[in-house]
Amino acid sequence: MKPLGPIPSGYASRDGQLEIGGMTARELVELAGGTPCFIYSKAHLERRVAELRAAMPARLGINYAVKANPFLPVVTYMARLVDGFDIASAGELVTVMAAGIDPFRVSFAGPGKRDKELEAAIHAGVTLNCESEGEARRTLAIGERLGIAPRIAIRVNPDFELKGSGMKMGGGAKPFGLDAERVPAMAREIIAAGAEWRGLHIFTGSQALSAEAIIEAQANVLDCADRLAHEISTPLPKLNMGGGFGIPYFHGDLPLDIAAIGAALEERFEGLPETLAATELCIELGRYLVGEAGVYLAEAIDRKESHGVTYLITDGGLHHQLAASGNFGTVVRRNYPLAIATRFDADPEEEANVVGCLCTPLDRLADQAHLPRAEVGDLVAVFCAGAYGASASPAQFLGHGPAAELLI
Amino acid sequence: MKPLGPIPSGYASRDGQLEIGGMTARELVELAGGTPCFIYSKAHLERRVAELRAAMPARLGINYAVKANPFLPVVTYMARLVDGFDIASAGELVTVMAAGIDPFRVSFAGPGKRDKELEAAIHAGVTLNCESEGEARRTLAIGERLGIAPRIAIRVNPDFELKGSGMKMGGGAKPFGLDAERVPAMAREIIAAGAEWRGLHIFTGSQALSAEAIIEAQANVLDCADRLAHEISTPLPKLNMGGGFGIPYFHGDLPLDIAAIGAALEERFEGLPETLAATELCIELGRYLVGEAGVYLAEAIDRKESHGVTYLITDGGLHHQLAASGNFGTVVRRNYPLAIATRFDADPEEEANVVGCLCTPLDRLADQAHLPRAEVGDLVAVFCAGAYGASASPAQFLGHGPAAELLI
Repeated sequence: MKPLGPIPSGYASRDGQLEIGGMTARELVELAGGTPCFIYSKAHLERRVAELRAAMPARLGINYAVKANPFLPVVTYMARLVDGFDIASAGELVTVMAAGIDPFRVSFAGPGKRDKELEAAIHAGVTLNCESEGEARRTLAIGERLGIAPRIAIRVNPDFELKGSGMKMGGGAKPFGLDAERVPAMAREIIAAGAEWRGLHIFTGSQALSAEAIIEAQANVLDCADRLAHEISTPLPKLNMGGGFGIPYFHGDLPLDIAAIGAALEERFEGLPETLAATELCIELGRYLVGEAGVYLAEAIDRKESHGVTYLITDGGLHHQLAASGNFGTVVRRNYPLAIATRFDADPEEEANVVGCLCTPLDRLADQAHLPRAEVGDLVAVFCAGAYGASASPAQFLGHGPAAELLI
Repeated sequence: MKPLGPIPSGYASRDGQLEIGGMTARELVELAGGTPCFIYSKAHLERRVAELRAAMPARLGINYAVKANPFLPVVTYMARLVDGFDIASAGELVTVMAAGIDPFRVSFAGPGKRDKELEAAIHAGVTLNCESEGEARRTLAIGERLGIAPRIAIRVNPDFELKGSGMKMGGGAKPFGLDAERVPAMAREIIAAGAEWRGLHIFTGSQALSAEAIIEAQANVLDCADRLAHEISTPLPKLNMGGGFGIPYFHGDLPLDIAAIGAALEERFEGLPETLAATELCIELGRYLVGEAGVYLAEAIDRKESHGVTYLITDGGLHHQLAASGNFGTVVRRNYPLAIATRFDADPEEEANVVGCLCTPLDRLADQAHLPRAEVGDLVAVFCAGAYGASASPAQFLGHGPAAELLI
């Protein structure tokens, strides 16, 4: 028996079925036009942002990183909840424009921005978080050619990392950002060239569950920004402090203590150095805002035994849920939170392997899981499917195509 | 320094550039409409099949597993080269139909076939490799409803595995196929129900580079088929012996010795038992046929140093080359074969990390590679991109969209 990850809070049962936004799993599948489908919950999105606002200093802006879930209705809905948006490609720029988001609220980071992407972003008035001297100079040249002063921030590759994060994005050599010691010279060059100086972006890592580690990283980010602002000799208009807030995916994971993070940040904000006194401060969260708001529903289409092992075969799989299958940035596969959505309040009574429909042994949704007995036609729910699910999976693999998505 | 995988044979240099099908890398990119793009070589496909035909017994049919590369021009081109096609979804059925392939040459395997997929396959006249009793009975019921005798084979979960294979698909409990001991009863039930009995499908694993292991697995497959045919008491019309032929991806990998496999198979075929004397025999290959025929081209859009490390940042990435990034069925990341396509005959002179354009540390194409010095605008080629590349990668991730594909 292998444990399942913890089901996020806020998912209730009605008539024995998983209920989301007042509808049962079966009703949701009908609305989505069938299985497999992703259901994203407005109520979860709202509550998550409200809780975060309550915990964080009022001064701190909250940005949404579109890459976590670029589904247009989700992005549109987030526009009323958060302060800013971070995009990572011209494709995501199209998405935020389609969602009616003011480009002044948008910044664009990513180590490989093409000239045509820089051009589109400058035209739109989006802030470019430049990641190298070469990119900053390309941006300035394109701005000059277009006759538009580009809005430029510098992404810093900091000398420290977010400890215990799922993905380290600071500390040592990195393809992201400019090494901290080279930032002041480049910032002065940008300002001298007549661009609109938008400050710094310091991203240290993602998917951390330790408040202590995030508190330490945020303190380091503020110190680093102060030091760099001094060296640049210009007040910092804005500081994107990065993200790193993780969600529990696996057995034993505990939710992040955001109250502790907020309290520590409040304390720091009360004693900010002069360089940061008037700076617009924000954090940038993707997974933390939308991850737990999404559920992936698939139907059991076969139930079989092989050498005494029970397999529940679904019409879903890694083509929609690559990370849940254990094949995306994971070394040791562990079970995501998963349930039989049509027997949501039933007691577990058997051990089963839940797999997808793809003809590959990689396509696993739960290994040796303790579950209620499910039959063909039952629905399986994979939780924590709101971030890096639909868009971060190989939807064309084996020709089944993408899953439906629904914001409810 | 970390070694790169071996560049497959048949890729020459012209004017210092990688040449494929008589065109240079720059010409190919122009034809494809820009970078990133996949270039598939007809000459490589032809030569691979010709070499295989020369090595294998004349009696052995060669099937193409569409899942490896479902790009329609590739599938259409393969139709003139191979004997049969294996599909894994109704989506792939649409592809083989669009390629004008006779459905009688097609079989459909996969652990999670939906009723509507079974129905489409029965309508088309495709052979269904049923993977459980439940699926076989659903197939019979749908055939009866449609008034069409379905063509049915049984996929066997064998009691042995392909040793040293990248993915084991036999031996012990599996979601694929029916445990061998339950096959005879199910086969008799299928025959008694009036379906067209199409025999057995025995798949033991994939991506093996040891001829010895494949020879052993094929011998076991023939023994297993003989035993099962005896128990079924009916001659076996067809036996799909599975695949397993691997290609070298990584430093130190050696090409499979197909001459040895062919010689061993020839010997077995000369002394086949009566149950298999008239059986149509085939192997099913995907990656082996198309993997080395594909090259992924991306452009270097930035070159930067971070703490003394050189990064070459391309407009490609894991959204097209998930496996090459080390994030698909890999525990320890190793470098695929990669070259600077626009300096294809230049000597290596520096160590560089080649990364994609995505804003994630997972997006790596080559770590600490010894390469000619490349500048912005140079083209990077990732080899072994013909199988499980474009269709097995999360093309929507971060909004850059799919790469162009070209058969040349």
